[in-house]
Amino acid sequence: MSDQQPVVGIVMGSDSDWPVMEGAADALAELGVAVEVDVVSAHRMPTEMIEYGRTASDLGLRVIVAGAGGAAHLPGMLASVTPLPVIGVPVPLRHLDGMDSLLSIVQMPAGVPVATVSVGGARNAGLLAARILGAGTDAEALALRERMVAFQAELGDVARAKGEKLRASRARRTGF
Amino acid sequence: MSDQQPVVGIVMGSDSDWPVMEGAADALAELGVAVEVDVVSAHRMPTEMIEYGRTASDLGLRVIVAGAGGAAHLPGMLASVTPLPVIGVPVPLRHLDGMDSLLSIVQMPAGVPVATVSVGGARNAGLLAARILGAGTDAEALALRERMVAFQAELGDVARAKGEKLRASRARRTGF
Amino acid sequence: MSDQQPVVGIVMGSDSDWPVMEGAADALAELGVAVEVDVVSAHRMPTEMIEYGRTASDLGLRVIVAGAGGAAHLPGMLASVTPLPVIGVPVPLRHLDGMDSLLSIVQMPAGVPVATVSVGGARNAGLLAARILGAGTDAEALALRERMVAFQAELGDVARAKGEKLRASRARRTGF
Amino acid sequence: MSDQQPVVGIVMGSDSDWPVMEGAADALAELGVAVEVDVVSAHRMPTEMIEYGRTASDLGLRVIVAGAGGAAHLPGMLASVTPLPVIGVPVPLRHLDGMDSLLSIVQMPAGVPVATVSVGGARNAGLLAARILGAGTDAEALALRERMVAFQAELGDVARAKGEKLRASRARRTGF
Amino acid sequence: MSDQQPVVGIVMGSDSDWPVMEGAADALAELGVAVEVDVVSAHRMPTEMIEYGRTASDLGLRVIVAGAGGAAHLPGMLASVTPLPVIGVPVPLRHLDGMDSLLSIVQMPAGVPVATVSVGGARNAGLLAARILGAGTDAEALALRERMVAFQAELGDVARAKGEKLRASRARRTGF
Amino acid sequence: MSDQQPVVGIVMGSDSDWPVMEGAADALAELGVAVEVDVVSAHRMPTEMIEYGRTASDLGLRVIVAGAGGAAHLPGMLASVTPLPVIGVPVPLRHLDGMDSLLSIVQMPAGVPVATVSVGGARNAGLLAARILGAGTDAEALALRERMVAFQAELGDVARAKGEKLRASRARRTGF
Amino acid sequence: MSDQQPVVGIVMGSDSDWPVMEGAADALAELGVAVEVDVVSAHRMPTEMIEYGRTASDLGLRVIVAGAGGAAHLPGMLASVTPLPVIGVPVPLRHLDGMDSLLSIVQMPAGVPVATVSVGGARNAGLLAARILGAGTDAEALALRERMVAFQAELGDVARAKGEKLRASRARRTGF
Amino acid sequence: MSDQQPVVGIVMGSDSDWPVMEGAADALAELGVAVEVDVVSAHRMPTEMIEYGRTASDLGLRVIVAGAGGAAHLPGMLASVTPLPVIGVPVPLRHLDGMDSLLSIVQMPAGVPVATVSVGGARNAGLLAARILGAGTDAEALALRERMVAFQAELGDVARAKGEKLRASRARRTGF
Repeated sequence: MSDQQPVVGIVMGSDSDWPVMEGAADALAELGVAVEVDVVSAHRMPTEMIEYGRTASDLGLRVIVAGAGGAAHLPGMLASVTPLPVIGVPVPLRHLDGMDSLLSIVQMPAGVPVATVSVGGARNAGLLAARILGAGTDAEALALRERMVAFQAELGDVARAKGEKLRASRARRTGF
Repeated sequence: MSDQQPVVGIVMGSDSDWPVMEGAADALAELGVAVEVDVVSAHRMPTEMIEYGRTASDLGLRVIVAGAGGAAHLPGMLASVTPLPVIGVPVPLRHLDGMDSLLSIVQMPAGVPVATVSVGGARNAGLLAARILGAGTDAEALALRERMVAFQAELGDVARAKGEKLRASRARRTGF
Repeated sequence: MSDQQPVVGIVMGSDSDWPVMEGAADALAELGVAVEVDVVSAHRMPTEMIEYGRTASDLGLRVIVAGAGGAAHLPGMLASVTPLPVIGVPVPLRHLDGMDSLLSIVQMPAGVPVATVSVGGARNAGLLAARILGAGTDAEALALRERMVAFQAELGDVARAKGEKLRASRARRTGF
Repeated sequence: MSDQQPVVGIVMGSDSDWPVMEGAADALAELGVAVEVDVVSAHRMPTEMIEYGRTASDLGLRVIVAGAGGAAHLPGMLASVTPLPVIGVPVPLRHLDGMDSLLSIVQMPAGVPVATVSVGGARNAGLLAARILGAGTDAEALALRERMVAFQAELGDVARAKGEKLRASRARRTGF
Repeated sequence: MSDQQPVVGIVMGSDSDWPVMEGAADALAELGVAVEVDVVSAHRMPTEMIEYGRTASDLGLRVIVAGAGGAAHLPGMLASVTPLPVIGVPVPLRHLDGMDSLLSIVQMPAGVPVATVSVGGARNAGLLAARILGAGTDAEALALRERMVAFQAELGDVARAKGEKLRASRARRTGF
Repeated sequence: MSDQQPVVGIVMGSDSDWPVMEGAADALAELGVAVEVDVVSAHRMPTEMIEYGRTASDLGLRVIVAGAGGAAHLPGMLASVTPLPVIGVPVPLRHLDGMDSLLSIVQMPAGVPVATVSVGGARNAGLLAARILGAGTDAEALALRERMVAFQAELGDVARAKGEKLRASRARRTGF
Repeated sequence: MSDQQPVVGIVMGSDSDWPVMEGAADALAELGVAVEVDVVSAHRMPTEMIEYGRTASDLGLRVIVAGAGGAAHLPGMLASVTPLPVIGVPVPLRHLDGMDSLLSIVQMPAGVPVATVSVGGARNAGLLAARILGAGTDAEALALRERMVAFQAELGDVARAKGEKLRASRARRTGF
Repeated sequence: MSDQQPVVGIVMGSDSDWPVMEGAADALAELGVAVEVDVVSAHRMPTEMIEYGRTASDLGLRVIVAGAGGAAHLPGMLASVTPLPVIGVPVPLRHLDGMDSLLSIVQMPAGVPVATVSVGGARNAGLLAARILGAGTDAEALALRERMVAFQAELGDVARAKGEKLRASRARRTGF
C-alpha cells in the first residue's frame, strides 16, 4: 500500500484525535486504499488548513476524511475550499458526549456539504471513502466496489456466526 | 438531461417528503447530473426497498440519496444492501425538529456508513452526490469537479454581492 | 421449558447486545414462556432479517422482542414484515446514552408500530411479551395472566420488605 | 362494531387529548375491533384511575391504550394495577415538543412495562393493540392477524402509488 | 428528635434511592425537624402509595418529600391525593443522567403541583421542607425560620473561609 | 381579598412575563389568598431585588413566587437572601422552549433550594403557594387546606364530566 | 458616528442574518461607537474571511462581532486568525432552535476563545463589545465605561417603571 | 507578576471549582497578566458578591472571569452590577454534563451580556481576558496583543509538530 499515491487524506485537529481516527486508516488499509494522515488544525494552523483543502485535488487526493471535536470546524472549512467530497467524523470530547461535535459538523449551510458519520465513527468514515472511490467508472473503482460487496458478505458471515454461538451457548445451558 | 441514464437515485419514504427532497434533484439538475426519483418506503414496501438497494449498482446508479423522517431507516437499510455510497437526508417531522431523524440516520453501526447531511439539507445531499461523482477519474468526473469549483466560486460572488448591498444600504441610511 | 415450541423470539443486532437482552429471556423463563434467541442484524444480514420477520408468525412465534443500539433499525424493520407485535429495546451504546437508540425505535411512522420499552429495559420487554401472551383467550393465556397478577403482588411484597428494612435500620440508628 | 363487548380501552388524562387519541379509536374501528373511550385522569381522579386499571381485565378488556402529556403518569400507573398490556401514547404539549411526555411514559422501572409508541402516535397505538389481539390463538385472533397482513399490503400499495405519481409528475415536467 | 411526631414524610420508590434521599433526612435532622422515612413505590405498591398520600395530612405530616427515578410518578401521584405540599427529588438512574426523572416530576399538569428540586438534590429537598414549615405562624415556625437564617449565615461563613484558604494558598505559592 | 395583608409575593423579571405569571395570581385569588405583584429584575435592578428578598419575611410575606426566563436568576437569588420558601416558574422564551429557564431555576446548589414548577406553570406555582400556607398549624392554614381538598375534588368532577361528554359524543356518533 | 474610524466589525455569514445582527449595530450606535458591517461567509468566501480576520487589528478594529447559524464556523475561524476579542452570536435557523449554532460557537478548543452570547442575542453582543472597549485605559474608554454605568441605571429605571405600571393596573382592577 | 495591581478578577462559587478555574489563572500568568483569585458565591454570600461586582472597576479590575456550575448565577449577577466585561465559565457538575451550567450562563436577557466560553473552558476564559486587555490603546495593550499573536503562532508550531510526529510514526510502521 505504502508506495501508492494516496487518494484519501485523513486529517484531524490534534494528534489526541488519532486513537479515534485510526479506525478510518485501518478500514482503508484493509481495502487496499492508499491514504495519507496528518494533523491539520482549523483553529491553530488556519492558513495551512486552507492550503491543504485548496490543493488536495491537484495533489491527487480524491476524498478527504476529517475528524474534529467540540466546535468542530475542520470538515466544513475543508469542504469550503475543495470540490472533493469531505467526510466528517464527530470526535467526542470530555463533555456533551459528542453532540456538539456532531451538530458542528452535520448542520452545514446550503452549498457546502459534509458527509457526516456517527459520533466516533471513524471506521465508517473509512468505509464511506472506499464506497465513494468505488462509485467511479474505471477498473480500479469496479474492483473496489467488488471488494466492498465481499466485505459486506463477510459482515453477514460474522453476524451469523455470532448468532450460532449464542444459540449454542443457550442450548448447552438448557441441556440440549 | 432527461435522456441520460440516471446515475443518482433519489428516494424517500413518502411523497410528503418530496417538498424537502426536491432540493436534491434541483441541485443535481443544475449541475447536469441525471437522476431518477422514487418513493421507496422501508416500512411500507420493505421487499421493494431491499430490491431497490440490491440492484441499484447493476442498474447503473452510482450514488443513492435517501430521505426519511422520525425513525428513519431507509438510508441505513439501503446502505446495508448496496456497495454504493448512500447519502441520508434527515427530514424533520412535526415533533422533535428532526433530531430523531438525524440520530436515526447518522448513528449507523460500524460496517455500514451513511453519509448524513443536515436536517432538511436535501440541496446539500445533491451537491454531495455531485462531489462524489466528481471524485472519479474519467473525463466526465473531471468536468463535474470543474463545475463544482465554478459553483463554489459563484457562491462566493453571491455572498460578496450581499455584503456590498448590506454596506450600501447602511451607508445610505447613515447619510453617505 | 426447553421442550416447548418457542412463542417469543428474542433477537438482537449483535451478540454484544446479549448482556442487556438476557434480561428479556430471564423474565420469560421465570414466567414459563418458551423463547428462542438469535442474532439477526438488520444491517449485516438484511435478507435473513427480512426472512426472519416474514416467517415468524408461520413458524409459531407470537411476539418478537428486538434489541438494537444507535441507529437501531431492527425492531422497526421486523415490524414492517410481520403482523405480530414487535417489542423494541433501545440498547445504549458508548455515546449519547441510548437517546439515539430510543428515538430510532420509538418514532416509527404511522402504520408500523413498535412497542418500545425503556433504554436498556430488556427485562420489561420480556414482561410485556408475557402480558401480550396473557391477553389471549385460551386457558394458557388466562394462566399466564394469573401468573402476572401474582408476579405483581410479589413486586409489592419485595417493595414492602425494603421499606420495613429501611425503617428498621433507621430506628436502630436513632435508638428505638 | 358498536354492539360488541369492547376489548380495548382507550383512555386519556383530559378531553383535550382526544384530537390526538382519536387516531387510536379510528385505527381499531377500521380493523373491526370494539373499543371503549374515556377520560381517566391519573392526577385529577386517582381513585377511579386505579379502579379502572384494577377492574379492566375482569370487565373484558384485553388491551389498554393510554395517552397523556407532560409528566405523563397515566399509562404507567394503569400498568401497575393491571396484568394487561398497556400501550402509552406520549401526547405533545405546548412546550418541549413531547419529549417530557415520551420520557415520562417509556422510562418505566423494571417490573412494570408500558408499550410506548411515538410522540402523538395514537394511530400506531391502535394498530399495536390490534397486533396484540391478533397474537392470540383463537379464530378471531387469526382473522385479525390476517386483516393486519392485508392492511400492511395496502400500506405498500399506497406507497407504490405515491411513487408512481411522483415519477409521472416528474416525467411530465421534464417532457416525456 | 426521635420522640417527636414526624411532620415530614420522606418516601422513595426503592431502597436503592436511599443513598440519594438520605440527604433530605440529614438536612432536616440538622434543623431539628422530625421525619419518617419509608419505601412507597407508585408502581409496585400503588394501593399503599395512594393510601399513604391520602392519610398523610390526618396522620400529622405537613410536608412530603418524594424521590424517584426514570418515569418518576411517585411525587406527582402523591400530590394528587394530598393537599399537602409535595417536594419531588429527581433521582438519576444509569442512563439519561436524571433528565427523564426531572421531566417526569416537574412537568405536572395544571392543578397538581410538585415542588421540584435539582437532579439528586435531596439535601435541598430537606431544606425546602424546613422553609415550608418555617413559613407557618406559630412559635415553632418562627424558631425554624430563625434557624434557617442562621443556617444561611453559616453557608456564607463557610464560603468566605474557602475564599480565604484559596487566596492564602495562592499567596504562598507566589511567594507572599 | 384586597384589604388583606399580602402573604404571597409574586415577582417577575419583566412585565412581559405577566401573561404567564398572571396564572399564579389568579389561582391564589380563587383560594382567597392575598398577594402582591411586582417587577423585580435580578439583572436590571439587583439592589432592589436583594432588598426585596431580604425584607420579604419581615414585611409579612410567607411565600415568594418568582418567574423568569432564559438565564433565569431571580428565583435562586431571592432564595439566597430569604428564609422563606421560593417557588420558581420557568418562563419560556422565544428559543429553546423553556429548557434554559427550567435548568437555570431547578439546578440550584446544595444549601439554597427553589421549589420549581413546570415550564410556564404559573397556575401550579399559585396552587403550591396555597399548599405551603395550608401546611401551617393555625386555623387559617387548616381552612386553606380544606379549600385545597375541595379544589382537588372539583378537579375530579370536571375530569369526570369531560369523560361523560366524550363518551356521550361517541355514543351519538355510533348510533346509540 | 459615521465619520469615525470603525472600531467594531460586525460580520455575518449571510445577509439573511441581518435582522438578528442589526441589534448589535443598534446597541453600539446608541453608545456612540463606530462600527462597520459586512457579509463575510466562512464557507462561501473562506479566503476573504481569513483575510478579514488577519487584517482586522491592523485596520483599526478592536473587537469583532460575528453571527452565524447551524454549523456556525465564522466566529471561531475569525478568532483563529486575529488576536482581537471575537464575540459570537448564535443565529437560530429553522430547525433545532439555535442549539446547533450555540454549540458550534461556544465549544471552542483550548487556545482560541470566542465570547459567546445567547441564541439570537445580538444586542448583548453589541453591549459586550462596548464593555470591552470600556475596559481600556484611555479617556474614551473611561467615558464609555461611564456611559455603560448610565445605561445600566436606565435599565433599572425602565424595570422599575414596568413594576409601577403593573402594580397600578392591578390596583385599578381590584378597586383601589 | 505578584507585585502588580491585579487587572483580572477570577472568582468562583466554591473552591471545588478551582481545579477547573485554575486554567484561567495559568493562562493569564503565562501572558504576564496580574490576577486576583477568590471565592464569591452568588447564593451563599450574595451581599459580598454584589459588593465585589460593584467595586471591581473602582478597585482597578478591568475584566472579571467567573466560573459556576448548575444553576450558575454568578457570572450574570456580577455582570448586572459592573460595567466591566464579565467572562463566564460553565463548570460541569456531576449530572447533565455542564449543559445546565452553559444555558444558565449564556442565555442572559438583553441588556446584561456575559461572554461565555465552553463547558470547563477556563483556559480560554483566561485567553479571552487577555485579548480584551489587548484590545486597549495603550502601550501595554499593544504589547499584550503582540504576545497573543506570538502565542497563536506557537499554537500552530505545536500543531505542526504533532502532525510531523504522527506522520513519522506511521511512516515507521509502514516501513519507510
